Amino acid sequence: MPNVVPDASAVGGPSDEVVHLVESELRRWVGKGDDLMELVCLDALFPSGKLLRPILCVEAARAVNGAVQPVLAFAAGIECLHVASLVHDDIVDQDPVRRGRASTAEHFGIAEALLAGDGLSMAGHAAMLSGGLAQRVLPATRAVVDAMRRMTQAMMRETEIREDLTCSVATVMDVIRGKTAALISAACEAGAILSGATQPQTLALRQYGEHLGTAFQIRDDLLPYTSPDHVSGKAAVSDVANRQPSLPVLLAYELADAADRKRLDTIFRDESIDPASAHQAVCDVVTRTGAAAEAARRARSYADDARATLHGLPYTERLAELAETVVNRQR
Amino acid sequence: MPNVVPDASAVGGPSDEVVHLVESELRRWVGKGDDLMELVCLDALFPSGKLLRPILCVEAARAVNGAVQPVLAFAAGIECLHVASLVHDDIVDQDPVRRGRASTAEHFGIAEALLAGDGLSMAGHAAMLSGGLAQRVLPATRAVVDAMRRMTQAMMRETEIREDLTCSVATVMDVIRGKTAALISAACEAGAILSGATQPQTLALRQYGEHLGTAFQIRDDLLPYTSPDHVSGKAAVSDVANRQPSLPVLLAYELADAADRKRLDTIFRDESIDPASAHQAVCDVVTRTGAAAEAARRARSYADDARATLHGLPYTERLAELAETVVNRQR
Repeated sequence: MPNVVPDASAVGGPSDEVVHLVESELRRWVGKGDDLMELVCLDALFPSGKLLRPILCVEAARAVNGAVQPVLAFAAGIECLHVASLVHDDIVDQDPVRRGRASTAEHFGIAEALLAGDGLSMAGHAAMLSGGLAQRVLPATRAVVDAMRRMTQAMMRETEIREDLTCSVATVMDVIRGKTAALISAACEAGAILSGATQPQTLALRQYGEHLGTAFQIRDDLLPYTSPDHVSGKAAVSDVANRQPSLPVLLAYELADAADRKRLDTIFRDESIDPASAHQAVCDVVTRTGAAAEAARRARSYADDARATLHGLPYTERLAELAETVVNRQR
Repeated sequence: MPNVVPDASAVGGPSDEVVHLVESELRRWVGKGDDLMELVCLDALFPSGKLLRPILCVEAARAVNGAVQPVLAFAAGIECLHVASLVHDDIVDQDPVRRGRASTAEHFGIAEALLAGDGLSMAGHAAMLSGGLAQRVLPATRAVVDAMRRMTQAMMRETEIREDLTCSVATVMDVIRGKTAALISAACEAGAILSGATQPQTLALRQYGEHLGTAFQIRDDLLPYTSPDHVSGKAAVSDVANRQPSLPVLLAYELADAADRKRLDTIFRDESIDPASAHQAVCDVVTRTGAAAEAARRARSYADDARATLHGLPYTERLAELAETVVNRQR
């Protein structure tokens, strides 16, 4: 099929209108802040982040000539699940900062953050199941649930490889795919399914999401080594402070000479080194070995793969743009 | 319709066969223990508890002449969600003991328990969505998700009323309904929906579950004051140690004379009192004021209400028995 822009009435407005619609939908599912649960959930959701997953869900629908309105609640549900995972992740990592301000656990306490994550997750499921054709909603929800299972497994795997510089680049790539690419892929797949896409279209959009999500997370892992703290909005030293081997570090470990490898070994073993100095030292090695450039190259390659899967879909302009945005982002 | 026992081939075997079937199904959804996620989830699930919720789901299906097999995966999914909530609850309450042994957080660590709870929850959703008619699976899942939302809200409310003896019996009854009765009710409702029950049948089974669940939790709150530690399988002193005002304590506070009320005030304010002495002192007041007897009376009343809702359903023998078991249990 030719790559034509479909009738605007069938696909909704531009992305900032989509952002507004998704945010309204999020508020509808989480409430106004009438009790502690709603207050904590609202604090976790707003001001909202990039809303990448709900936007992708909506844009995947548009890519197959689907309408925006019927996927909005589902898209908002995916964002609830994503933010719930962030809230729990900050408990796991003991991260005090998220999106440039106090993480939910830091602000409200661990018990409250844990329960708010659970509440947000269930609000997400309720939103996903709230309407539409049962024959579409069911497989779309299944896709998201399977992705969430992969995500929790990857997060658990991450706790296992902490402090382990020998866990291999392949393992960290698995974690990246499970932790991030899976849900981003499911968001695209769900948008397609809910819009009545054909099987090949659905598969293409799912693959697009898998590649895009991989590019996104590689870029995310790279940010602490390329952007100062205030730009990336998260504590740049977090991964190093937690001795969490990320892709740039493992690539550096593979590419390093004996002296630099020993430096990394020491940093990952010696908890007495203060986090800022440790981060700076790792930063130097990641740059010097070419690991930063290699990680950037891989992100670019996945983004290109993502764009390639769009070939033949009715309307792909926004999804192609998003692949570019993801790989060039500075935060 | 007369209260007849339906054809055994249509309804499956007795409850211990149901237990076996549910346990097999749980293993199918959680795996064999090939990675840390599976290991932690298996440890949380087995040896299994009473399996009250999946058994109720199956028995609700049988109550409307439904077959066991088509609801088994769904029933196992509900148990996964329930156990996930227990794993998280033990993090919130910092409880080292569950079912007579180390809680998941105590055994594996808080991060691992948090992630296993999330993984178990998603395994539960996957199981619920795994098969059957979409037109039935969707509303059945919605009922469970709504119940889980009520549960997380109630758990959050519980953290707010900690140490507050003036939060009122009505508030604690709300917590009981949200925390326990909601999911038990949804388990019964889902069993009915999945078996193609009529609307009045579905409503009756939902109400049965709401009453039964309320009776169950009142009994559960009472156990620390009537059963020694090794019988109830959980640390009897937990509620008092956490200064969590439970129904028996709030009833005692209402019924107490000035001296006993002052005693309770002191115990709930003074953190230097050791948990065992505090528990014994509360125990004495709960018994002396008649609060224990009043709580037992309320549990009995809800169990009677549960049985009354069964009137007119095709096969109610097991559900009626379960209402008795719940209110007479010693653990």
